[in-house]
Amino acid sequence: MRRELFDIPEGVIYLDGNSLGALPKHVAARMQEVISHQWGTRLIRSWSEGWWEAPQRIGDRIGRLIGAAEGQVVVGDSTSVNVFKALMAAVKGTTRSEIVVDESTFPTDGYIAQSVGELTGLKVRAAQPSSLDINEDTAVVLLNHVDYRTGAMLDMAELTGQAHAAGAPVVWDLCHSAGVIPIRLDELQVDYAVGCSYKFLNGGPGAPAFIYVPKHKQATFENPLSGWNGHRAPFAMEASYDPDPGIARARVGTPDILSMLALDAALDVWDDVDMQVVWKCGLSLTAQFRTHVTRLTSLEIITPDEIPRGNQISIRCADAKNVMDELIARGVIGDHRPPDVLRFGFAPLYVTSGDVLRAAEILAEIVN
Amino acid sequence: MRRELFDIPEGVIYLDGNSLGALPKHVAARMQEVISHQWGTRLIRSWSEGWWEAPQRIGDRIGRLIGAAEGQVVVGDSTSVNVFKALMAAVKGTTRSEIVVDESTFPTDGYIAQSVGELTGLKVRAAQPSSLDINEDTAVVLLNHVDYRTGAMLDMAELTGQAHAAGAPVVWDLCHSAGVIPIRLDELQVDYAVGCSYKFLNGGPGAPAFIYVPKHKQATFENPLSGWNGHRAPFAMEASYDPDPGIARARVGTPDILSMLALDAALDVWDDVDMQVVWKCGLSLTAQFRTHVTRLTSLEIITPDEIPRGNQISIRCADAKNVMDELIARGVIGDHRPPDVLRFGFAPLYVTSGDVLRAAEILAEIVN
Repeated sequence: MRRELFDIPEGVIYLDGNSLGALPKHVAARMQEVISHQWGTRLIRSWSEGWWEAPQRIGDRIGRLIGAAEGQVVVGDSTSVNVFKALMAAVKGTTRSEIVVDESTFPTDGYIAQSVGELTGLKVRAAQPSSLDINEDTAVVLLNHVDYRTGAMLDMAELTGQAHAAGAPVVWDLCHSAGVIPIRLDELQVDYAVGCSYKFLNGGPGAPAFIYVPKHKQATFENPLSGWNGHRAPFAMEASYDPDPGIARARVGTPDILSMLALDAALDVWDDVDMQVVWKCGLSLTAQFRTHVTRLTSLEIITPDEIPRGNQISIRCADAKNVMDELIARGVIGDHRPPDVLRFGFAPLYVTSGDVLRAAEILAEIVN
Repeated sequence: MRRELFDIPEGVIYLDGNSLGALPKHVAARMQEVISHQWGTRLIRSWSEGWWEAPQRIGDRIGRLIGAAEGQVVVGDSTSVNVFKALMAAVKGTTRSEIVVDESTFPTDGYIAQSVGELTGLKVRAAQPSSLDINEDTAVVLLNHVDYRTGAMLDMAELTGQAHAAGAPVVWDLCHSAGVIPIRLDELQVDYAVGCSYKFLNGGPGAPAFIYVPKHKQATFENPLSGWNGHRAPFAMEASYDPDPGIARARVGTPDILSMLALDAALDVWDDVDMQVVWKCGLSLTAQFRTHVTRLTSLEIITPDEIPRGNQISIRCADAKNVMDELIARGVIGDHRPPDVLRFGFAPLYVTSGDVLRAAEILAEIVN
């Protein structure tokens, strides 16, 4: 859709935007300005010339892409840390006994849920999304919108409704769906959401993550990581913690400004992008790859052939690691996930139909 | 000492390196390489070409400056988050009842201690460093090495000894001492330490913080933020959390690589620096400023005139905010802390005796 805005190396077909998004061309120059002018020349003054509010301002930019109105998304910390904040806030004061996690969760979500369980005395129960059994014991449900391994997508409307019917809040992890699917957080009355910005949002390696706390939840959102950036009056240097009334209470410490402003710059490629168009483009790319791979090889595709789905195709392949090494040697960059999965991500902003065909042909040459 | 390595704007006397360190000249070019080559060209491959191990490698570089042998310092997250990790790990399983914090602590340390107290049922007691009364009820002691407001320095050997005599571990916050004082973490058998890298270490705005966990504490260090980067085998994507045996267990989520590699570049200016020489240079600069200010004004200096002390001079001044605005307008950049403190930091690597004299003269012109 906007490949001309990206720096894709000559000879490379990049199908790993679901792991690390490609570099928008203008980011390097912007970062020169940030480093040389904002840090080098303006020095400490830059904190009052845009740095301090950057997490909320950039949060709003991401909010537009995930169906969140302004003032409900803030950028900072890692996804893991934001899962911790959301879960701890969600179970604060609960009289219920369990945290429900989808059993195919990205590992870090499950690890953090385990820690939250230990800290709060709650049990963690891993369940299949098709039979979550959310009930009156469920304190919170933590779900991955798109399965990182298979690309299967959960029905956010249906599962959020199930949780609410049982009186449980839900935390959605959007790491593999933000930037590919029209998400409707506000409309579906999602309780909390988190996600990273370095995959399909192409914000840069390890770019800061985000957390969504809707307006009506903010007054009761207790951040367990009560750092000074979330204080109502951070520079008053008060002795006791008094959280900001709004989304800033989800902030913790001083944010990594260079990574954050690289993300800010990178988000320019999303200006005026219609997520419905991105979504249709992604569906088309994954469908084309499926057709080519099925035609050219006998490999098993484990990504479900249904709509909705994530923007990736995962393929079972006994010798996945070596096959991926060979693909990369031939210029097709995807990744593999143990034990036997080849993953290919199709970022609609910069992957073309030509890339898709050529990648399938090279894959076929290797495995046949 | 090494001013030629820094980009200090023409006409600026920069006395705020205790808040945001100045820009080393070579960082901008290095970040071009990181962005254009490592992110843009190498893409996902960079994770196995140095990115994944960067937090430990850079941690070791900081370790050299704070008296920690290799394999005990890791970089990532903010200071606030690292205080949380250290305190939670320190009180895990304790049968004692209180967390002791120095009463003039930087606010975020106290806020995080409060949250840890609420999560664990421990009481937080704020005490004067001169009468901490560490006793058999004390589960952990959290101390700021240098007071951010006054520049007073605590005696790390004496207070660590006091804590250990009472059977309590101690967490030292080095935010205002790392990069100015020869710290001896290993030698003093400090239990845990945290600090930021964007002040005297000049790692860039909001650069990642660090945490020190000595070898003999690592096996029992339980990170409450059990993210996948701290896992023994992160890419095995196992369902349960099994921490790395070493310092990597203090990692959490995917680190902000751009901010982290800017810090890495910035640390080059510390290569071969002898912290004893830095320390003496800093003492000389602060002594000179004290002398000039005392000679030229009647302002009250609240930084203690004793050794050791931090590399800053704090001055009581009724109209601190306006005076600082005027100083900045005339090219002397310090900062103010409410209600009535002017702060001036003296980074030995780039502040000169000429800067010190001129800053005192301009201050005198404004207040007299």
